Amino acid sequence: MILQEAFTVEPWALRETKLDMDLMAQAESVFALANGHLGWRGNLDEGEPHGLPGSYLNGVFETRPLPYAEAAYGLPESGQEIINVTNGKIIRLFVDDESFDIRYGQLRAHERLLDFRAGVLKRTAEWVSPAGKRVQITSTRMVSFTQRAIGAISYEVVPLDQPARIAVLSELLANEQLPMASADPRAAAALASPLQHEYDSARDTAAVLVHITRQSKLRVGAAMDHIIDGPSDVRIEGRGVHDSCLVTAATVLQPGQKLRLIKFVAYGWSGARSLNGLRDQVWAALTAARQTGWDGLLDEQRKYLDDFWDRSDVEVDGDAEVQQAVRFALFQVLQAGARAEQRAISAKGLTGPGYDGHAFWDTEAFVLPVLTLTVPGAVANALHWRHSTIPTAVERAAQLGLKGTAFPWRTISGPECSGYWPAGVAAFHINADIADAVVAYVDATGDEAFERGEGFDLLAHTARLWRSLGHHDGQGRFHIDGVTGPDEYSAVADDNIYTNLMAKHNLLKAADVAEKYPDRAKELGIDPEESAGWRDAGEAMSIPFDETLGVHPQAAGFTRQQAWDFAHTAPDQYPLFLHFPYFDLYRKQVVKQADLVLAMHKRGGAFTAEQKARNFDYYEALTVRDSSLSACTQAVMAAEVGHLDLAYDYLGEAALMDLRDLEHNTRDGVHIASLAGTYVALIAGFGGLRHEDGMISFSPRLPDGLARLAFTVLIRGRRLHVEVTHATTKYTLADGEPLDFMHYGQKASVSTGKPQVHRVHKAPPITPRPSQPPGREPARRRPSEDTT
Amino acid sequence: MILQEAFTVEPWALRETKLDMDLMAQAESVFALANGHLGWRGNLDEGEPHGLPGSYLNGVFETRPLPYAEAAYGLPESGQEIINVTNGKIIRLFVDDESFDIRYGQLRAHERLLDFRAGVLKRTAEWVSPAGKRVQITSTRMVSFTQRAIGAISYEVVPLDQPARIAVLSELLANEQLPMASADPRAAAALASPLQHEYDSARDTAAVLVHITRQSKLRVGAAMDHIIDGPSDVRIEGRGVHDSCLVTAATVLQPGQKLRLIKFVAYGWSGARSLNGLRDQVWAALTAARQTGWDGLLDEQRKYLDDFWDRSDVEVDGDAEVQQAVRFALFQVLQAGARAEQRAISAKGLTGPGYDGHAFWDTEAFVLPVLTLTVPGAVANALHWRHSTIPTAVERAAQLGLKGTAFPWRTISGPECSGYWPAGVAAFHINADIADAVVAYVDATGDEAFERGEGFDLLAHTARLWRSLGHHDGQGRFHIDGVTGPDEYSAVADDNIYTNLMAKHNLLKAADVAEKYPDRAKELGIDPEESAGWRDAGEAMSIPFDETLGVHPQAAGFTRQQAWDFAHTAPDQYPLFLHFPYFDLYRKQVVKQADLVLAMHKRGGAFTAEQKARNFDYYEALTVRDSSLSACTQAVMAAEVGHLDLAYDYLGEAALMDLRDLEHNTRDGVHIASLAGTYVALIAGFGGLRHEDGMISFSPRLPDGLARLAFTVLIRGRRLHVEVTHATTKYTLADGEPLDFMHYGQKASVSTGKPQVHRVHKAPPITPRPSQPPGREPARRRPSEDTT
Repeated sequence: MILQEAFTVEPWALRETKLDMDLMAQAESVFALANGHLGWRGNLDEGEPHGLPGSYLNGVFETRPLPYAEAAYGLPESGQEIINVTNGKIIRLFVDDESFDIRYGQLRAHERLLDFRAGVLKRTAEWVSPAGKRVQITSTRMVSFTQRAIGAISYEVVPLDQPARIAVLSELLANEQLPMASADPRAAAALASPLQHEYDSARDTAAVLVHITRQSKLRVGAAMDHIIDGPSDVRIEGRGVHDSCLVTAATVLQPGQKLRLIKFVAYGWSGARSLNGLRDQVWAALTAARQTGWDGLLDEQRKYLDDFWDRSDVEVDGDAEVQQAVRFALFQVLQAGARAEQRAISAKGLTGPGYDGHAFWDTEAFVLPVLTLTVPGAVANALHWRHSTIPTAVERAAQLGLKGTAFPWRTISGPECSGYWPAGVAAFHINADIADAVVAYVDATGDEAFERGEGFDLLAHTARLWRSLGHHDGQGRFHIDGVTGPDEYSAVADDNIYTNLMAKHNLLKAADVAEKYPDRAKELGIDPEESAGWRDAGEAMSIPFDETLGVHPQAAGFTRQQAWDFAHTAPDQYPLFLHFPYFDLYRKQVVKQADLVLAMHKRGGAFTAEQKARNFDYYEALTVRDSSLSACTQAVMAAEVGHLDLAYDYLGEAALMDLRDLEHNTRDGVHIASLAGTYVALIAGFGGLRHEDGMISFSPRLPDGLARLAFTVLIRGRRLHVEVTHATTKYTLADGEPLDFMHYGQKASVSTGKPQVHRVHKAPPITPRPSQPPGREPARRRPSEDTT
Repeated sequence: MILQEAFTVEPWALRETKLDMDLMAQAESVFALANGHLGWRGNLDEGEPHGLPGSYLNGVFETRPLPYAEAAYGLPESGQEIINVTNGKIIRLFVDDESFDIRYGQLRAHERLLDFRAGVLKRTAEWVSPAGKRVQITSTRMVSFTQRAIGAISYEVVPLDQPARIAVLSELLANEQLPMASADPRAAAALASPLQHEYDSARDTAAVLVHITRQSKLRVGAAMDHIIDGPSDVRIEGRGVHDSCLVTAATVLQPGQKLRLIKFVAYGWSGARSLNGLRDQVWAALTAARQTGWDGLLDEQRKYLDDFWDRSDVEVDGDAEVQQAVRFALFQVLQAGARAEQRAISAKGLTGPGYDGHAFWDTEAFVLPVLTLTVPGAVANALHWRHSTIPTAVERAAQLGLKGTAFPWRTISGPECSGYWPAGVAAFHINADIADAVVAYVDATGDEAFERGEGFDLLAHTARLWRSLGHHDGQGRFHIDGVTGPDEYSAVADDNIYTNLMAKHNLLKAADVAEKYPDRAKELGIDPEESAGWRDAGEAMSIPFDETLGVHPQAAGFTRQQAWDFAHTAPDQYPLFLHFPYFDLYRKQVVKQADLVLAMHKRGGAFTAEQKARNFDYYEALTVRDSSLSACTQAVMAAEVGHLDLAYDYLGEAALMDLRDLEHNTRDGVHIASLAGTYVALIAGFGGLRHEDGMISFSPRLPDGLARLAFTVLIRGRRLHVEVTHATTKYTLADGEPLDFMHYGQKASVSTGKPQVHRVHKAPPITPRPSQPPGREPARRRPSEDTT
């Protein structure tokens, strides 16, 4: 776990002032730079020591065999794993004849700062070599939002007391040695050295490397060039040696004299393009970046981010930690999704190899809702990627005996990579999550071209899936049996309410678009019988209810099952899945992550206020939050049912998931969906924002810990600014046509230049705070001092 | 599939008169000889050609890693696999300078005959070498029931037309090359050459080899000696070469002159004994066998079998095929279990490597019920083996968070080897099947010493498991959730009725023995509260019933699920598990093998006659019999509910499972449980035998196809002979005190020398024959001509 002292609390940056060798990998994840296409972990410039080196290109993976103790029909035979591509961020420094390595000599000063507005990672270090030479090193690193192929580094070294012979080696390095090994020897072998050399060239200040992956046959190119600024006698040399290209600058510096190296790195990859084509592509990107120049790249970056924050910022008064965390969260979500462009947004973004680099349902369920309100173009791109995998998903559905699409539970390029079907393949709700993201995007943007085109395709194919997956019983109710909902401590259950409600929405919305675009419906072979079948199945959807307890069972029979024996579960037995078999978890009432509670957030209209309160209370006592995808949803629903303090506690947990490494796996990358959840907890929780059927609504209500919450969302291209205090909510429209919205269920409207101020309603009557399983209560959140 | 013509139909033997190269492996399985300790597949004496060479020692296995695409708590990390031990049955023949190999030259005559009364496999062949030399070869092979370490062969060769130079090589061969390879490269590597050489010695006519397995560290010894009878100038030579020892006899024979070699082979293995200890053990066994001599071994074998048939034979008039099949079945069950002595009786016995040589629930559920009535001592031994694995099963239960024992779904030596938990680990009913076998054994034998000792231990530990596995609901009903019943096309379901009824029986019987043996109860720490808890849970056991349909759901909710789309399932899509994902099979109404129907057989008292009839009809329409463990049970229940012709059809299927290779996997070994089921189908089906609470009962009723059924069963050490015709049933007690029994629910009694004749009751009113899924109807059985 990361202690609070690791990072300073400030509103627009994440700053580390001390280097903790035990937190190397965690820091590399939170200091990672990415743009959705290229990701560089926050490794030290000199490459070593490291927690986990990482350079990633979205979509570049290696395949590996998926082994099974017992084979069965339909299990995927091979998996995909993100690989560490050519490392272009290495700059090694030699002072006299000694390597700059913080494990030797003395690190007198250290600071790293991730600037959310500048979009750069700055590092300063003061180091005394074992021989006693003191130098100052300053580097600024960026991964460009505006030029997606480009990363760049400005690196400066200054001797402080005495003259020193300085050599700076800038490197492109493929097949970098990684510290970890997979448990499966065959997988480890496949991934130990995934890149086969195809081409290298280095001359003067520039170099290029092209490799190809062994199995997946993806060609990866990286090129670098440098501007070197120092004494006139700097000797510069370029050299290529198979998997590595070096550009070296050597000189003698006087105290105070500076050697500065600006490094431009361009990446490209392709599964189709030729070696020459790819080499030319990275050269072209490199040339464009050099033309822009270092300062130009910085300017573009800031302008891009100014624009982003202008339409997306969230201000939190009264809790400086949460203020910092939500901006960090938005920055990371942007880094994951901004330029993913027709590739998946994976669970860890491009910040680490966790979950093998796979994308899951949480992209559509947690990440896209944030981007929909802030960077809607990225949502269209992400859904375009899903759309591009329809043929694979149709094939998979057919393999499973189903119609339409069965989108994969986990994948990089489209095929199912889940090797344990009860938790993966059976979680069909991902299909409805995709459909829901389509509907929400169209609702928020009014993008009818998308709705008519790719949106329609996605809705229709997923509706077909549901119609073939479910069936009517003798009483005409429609059931979806044997599937797994969001809660991974249950599996293969009948009538999971989250799944059923999301599928219902999916079916009805698909029927709507079929009615709205009859020509497209015809194209897709949807006749009136088929869309009527969707509507009928949706309307007849079975939603079990336990009349005795007065609550909704998460799935049929759930509330009849044995309760987990929390009293005899020791604190060190969490997360439960590491200490208990799935067999036992599945058959008892214990919830890993919000499931029925998520259904109440996503499909709130299906529940009465009283049901919401009772259900929330019931599931609080069962939910252990062994997933990072739970606290944010619990925050939203706690706020809705009136437990504002509890909501605030959950907000704190979501907000600090990575900054405090609460799940002990930030080393493998940050949790993009949980970060997105921080935003959702604030906006949907305390802002009470919901968005359904084209209408945005707010039921704002702040916890005692927060004095003011202000945020901007993008609705149909218009920036709506919402400012919530304990007394009032002020709605300001920054541009465009007047906007209708709901305030506590009452229709309201706002026009540019005419802010609307509404009263904040009182919270529902206070009921006893729900209890959680012993030891699993969220940490009580005490507002942090504002240190800005 | 084996066509009918492959074997002649005769009452006391299985005879092949033509060698079909396509059926080599199947014939090797059905012609396998074994005694429960040592098994020799029916490979040709000369070793090649072969389908699958096989020599097995019960309990000798190699371990291999069990790989998982996704790791999880509690999955077994290593599996066990039966290995082909040192082959002691090879006798190669050279005629002049040519190998006797049926693929070359001409095989003029061929016959193999497995004699159920003599307990030997006889082979005669007349072969013309490529050079035109005609020879006659005669061999007789046995695996001794009386000397469990011993196999022996008498091998004779006679030139028929011309003199010939004859060399006979008798071999011990370890690490024989196997034709098949596992799909998992690591497993294949581990098993390709499992035996490490430790010792070899060969001199004159005798040789010994000792090896040790690489991972499991089991030491395997084999020794051979020979008596060679031929012309006085026979040259005899012994030679050991690492993994192989040879004894060669060479001479020139005149036409009609005979060279005869008698080979004695002794085996031994141990996980504890030293090299010298094991070597001495096999020498001792070999010496004892030589002392007995070939004729002595044959005499002992026949005497052992005479005794077996005297108390176990089944006579079937009117269907010669079934007559042969049931004797073949009894012979194979005996071969699997006779001398297993504290080792498992595996699914394939010692006839092939199928199912990795593992033992499953079917030992207790199908095989032991047959042995209980015929070779009860083997049952005590088999349960003694289970008892010896209690510590492993207690450890496994604790790992799963349970009390008592969790016996493994599949194993050789005790640890769980199931690599797919929903179909394996979750099938907890194996624990109740073991308990049921204990109760049935004690009922049939009155063995109170066993009941008080190992029987009590097994009942108490399994009762503890059930008590901890299940729970009471708010209404006081006891539920067992999330388990898998016998039907492998459902998994992880709540309140599987088979499981619940068997667990109920288990709990109540355990409470009974705790009451009966209070001192033993105290020893095991069972206080009155615990046994009362067992009784309470048993009495409160939930048995779901579908009031709307008037049938029992196999498990809670089963009858509400979607019906499998049989109409769109093509004939070549069976067995379904090879063509559909478990995901889809599990959530629909489709049954692989009798489950609720098995519950009606094993726990008949829990159902009314009307429920039985309705349930049978309902499940017939859903049961596809993709398992060999179904037809026999369907035969029993079809007979009980009055569908005698259908029962007869199912009897035919069970009887011919291996003789016709109906499931296309007899190559890997015969189906011991299905063979046992042939007996059960006759005795429990048409004999109507049930045995509960110490009372044996009969409700005999023959189908039109059978004229007479006569059988002997051993009840409390007394042989009861039952002879059923369409009109009467005659009960004859061969020895001992008078015996009470039930005839159609009426109490009756029989004493020695006073046979009782009772009337056969009419069948229940004929209802329409139940229908099966299209294409899955059993073949209509037409009585075969009696060719005896």
